Amino acid sequence: MSENPAYPFSRRVEGLKSSAIRELLRVVGRPDVISFAGGLPAPELFPTEMLERLSTELFRSREAQDALQYGETDGVPALRERILARAPFAPGAFDLDGVLVTQGSQQGLDLAAKLFLDAGDEVLVESPAYVGALQAFRFFGARVTFLPCDGDGVDPEALRGALRRRPKLVYLTPTFQNPSGLCYTRQRRLEVAEVLRDSGTVLLEDDPYRELWFDEPPPPPIAAALEPARRVYMGSFSKIAVPGLRVGYLLGPAPLIGRFALAKQPADLHTNSLGQHLLVRLLAEPSFEDHVAGLRRVYRARRDVLDGALARVLKDRLSWHRPQGGLFLWARLLGGGDAAALLVHSLREGLAFVPGGEFHAEGEGRDTLRLNFSHSGEERLAEGVARLARAVESWRRQPSTPG
Amino acid sequence: MSENPAYPFSRRVEGLKSSAIRELLRVVGRPDVISFAGGLPAPELFPTEMLERLSTELFRSREAQDALQYGETDGVPALRERILARAPFAPGAFDLDGVLVTQGSQQGLDLAAKLFLDAGDEVLVESPAYVGALQAFRFFGARVTFLPCDGDGVDPEALRGALRRRPKLVYLTPTFQNPSGLCYTRQRRLEVAEVLRDSGTVLLEDDPYRELWFDEPPPPPIAAALEPARRVYMGSFSKIAVPGLRVGYLLGPAPLIGRFALAKQPADLHTNSLGQHLLVRLLAEPSFEDHVAGLRRVYRARRDVLDGALARVLKDRLSWHRPQGGLFLWARLLGGGDAAALLVHSLREGLAFVPGGEFHAEGEGRDTLRLNFSHSGEERLAEGVARLARAVESWRRQPSTPG
Repeated sequence: MSENPAYPFSRRVEGLKSSAIRELLRVVGRPDVISFAGGLPAPELFPTEMLERLSTELFRSREAQDALQYGETDGVPALRERILARAPFAPGAFDLDGVLVTQGSQQGLDLAAKLFLDAGDEVLVESPAYVGALQAFRFFGARVTFLPCDGDGVDPEALRGALRRRPKLVYLTPTFQNPSGLCYTRQRRLEVAEVLRDSGTVLLEDDPYRELWFDEPPPPPIAAALEPARRVYMGSFSKIAVPGLRVGYLLGPAPLIGRFALAKQPADLHTNSLGQHLLVRLLAEPSFEDHVAGLRRVYRARRDVLDGALARVLKDRLSWHRPQGGLFLWARLLGGGDAAALLVHSLREGLAFVPGGEFHAEGEGRDTLRLNFSHSGEERLAEGVARLARAVESWRRQPSTPG
Repeated sequence: MSENPAYPFSRRVEGLKSSAIRELLRVVGRPDVISFAGGLPAPELFPTEMLERLSTELFRSREAQDALQYGETDGVPALRERILARAPFAPGAFDLDGVLVTQGSQQGLDLAAKLFLDAGDEVLVESPAYVGALQAFRFFGARVTFLPCDGDGVDPEALRGALRRRPKLVYLTPTFQNPSGLCYTRQRRLEVAEVLRDSGTVLLEDDPYRELWFDEPPPPPIAAALEPARRVYMGSFSKIAVPGLRVGYLLGPAPLIGRFALAKQPADLHTNSLGQHLLVRLLAEPSFEDHVAGLRRVYRARRDVLDGALARVLKDRLSWHRPQGGLFLWARLLGGGDAAALLVHSLREGLAFVPGGEFHAEGEGRDTLRLNFSHSGEERLAEGVARLARAVESWRRQPSTPG
């Protein structure tokens, strides 16, 4: 192809750049590389046989035509009912008109950005924050403010101070966050809800990892303690069912969800019907809850292997908290340094991970790294840590990025 | 739910409103209403048995895990290859890096709007134009200019004049357009390409109906006669396979398609993997071309029934051209009048259609109506025309919208 001519792009294209997530999905495919980089669930745990049987039943049923036809923008009604029944809220907390099925929960972020953000508008997020949300907000020109967190969650006083500027949105991921693994305590959730209640600002609570707890179920969402008009809750079936159907959802006050649906219409008309109909059937399977319990068991064991291996060979080089759920272990280089430079050494050893910088405000968090433990089996987790340990030693001898 | 509080929406929300497409999809479900309104393909012609067999094969294959996992933003490579091989262009016209799989072709419009349109930017479209494109462009604040068309296509001189203002995009649907059914002649396509070549403006050519021709295959796309850097071609599997998988695509110069992919990433990460993998297998079926030929036969017969019934009972009240392909017959009220007012009478008779106003510039095209003939069987088409004829008589007695 010839040179890129000067297309008359919109102003928002100026800030558009590829993210490590996208680039690293390419690395994952190389069999010689052990990847702690992506956020992929374990494919060997997919309910593939169940889906095979359910798809056959679906194609032979009266619903087959609906599952292949155009559908309503809001989503398949039977799925919206199941979402409502399964949501971690008291019955009646949301109406059926307050449920919107989205193209993965990522689409909820795009729609929220479209609805709320003009260039220069402020959004509050945690430090660190999910990079896909940062991309969605920044694409629409948002100014993103990162709020400090401690081991209990975001700092309520920092939140209170930032809310005085009347930001457009507060985006929080309080339960086994990507990337940090942080799970807010019950007490902190209530404190945050109290601060938010006083502000009138809408909370966008992203909760895709809730069911992947290892020790005990997490406390209720922050949104459960908020007034209905000021909360939007985002969920996903990518982690507990399969990502390839691309089905997530938003819950919120019906008038606001109606606006999200209006914004979704020109974006894609509706979410794929086949995936929605398969999920209706999957969620109705009696053994589906056993499947989710199985995910918890396997991921807990993998967390233990990763945590144990790091404790054996890297405890003098890294600090971390053992995550209580989710897919990620978040570590910091003891004595500081640049995890992006470490990655160069690490890829040479055949291990990929995500340097933490891109989850932070510009220039911060360079000494952090995100390690995924859901996608690799226990042997590869142990081998990956051995490679990481070799990479750390090599990097310590030559800490700047080699040319 | 309580009143909608004053959310701090973005400026683009001011122009957000529901479209007739969305509202009318609700009417389609009522069994007492015959709907000529939607743009739905005939569900009884879906290749359901083929998809049942292919999904079983897929779930039992080595690709099962890929079909359920996260995927690359660009799309499944094997599908991108098939898209390239099937596209109505000379071999080598596009690179594999110039193919992006989208969430239906509608998503291509959203991405184009994001990449090119700041508030106030101009987009050129045909009069009438596809309402989903108008929604996508207007949501980003575009000024839409409607160009006059005759029976051969858009007016080249009007296009040339409008291009002097250096609009951001030209959006054309030259082949069996929704709503008008218009198919540009070969000569007009070449004239339009000539005018576009001089301008340097990017053409966005939307071509979802190309394979649904009734009499002879349509001429090549306008994009085939344009310089590679200035053309983006949009296609869809919704009309020839099934809409429920929500898979469409963009073809264009690799550097520009790379930008589209960057814009897609924060929107939804990627298009659903299962639908893409099913399409790879469906397109490889030897009998798939027979399936498409079957669609042409059935839709041609339905076109003939609708055209014939109108000619028998409404030729003094309506004018229309017999469409040579696609899903729609476009009619005009002889002597003028308001098709929206007619719709009120028509719904009372149990027939839905789309009044043409929303496909035009504000205030224009009120005497036009779009009749879909793909979704109703021949009996219902004939009965629908009988109902329409009764509605026209009732409306002529009382032409203003009844309170």
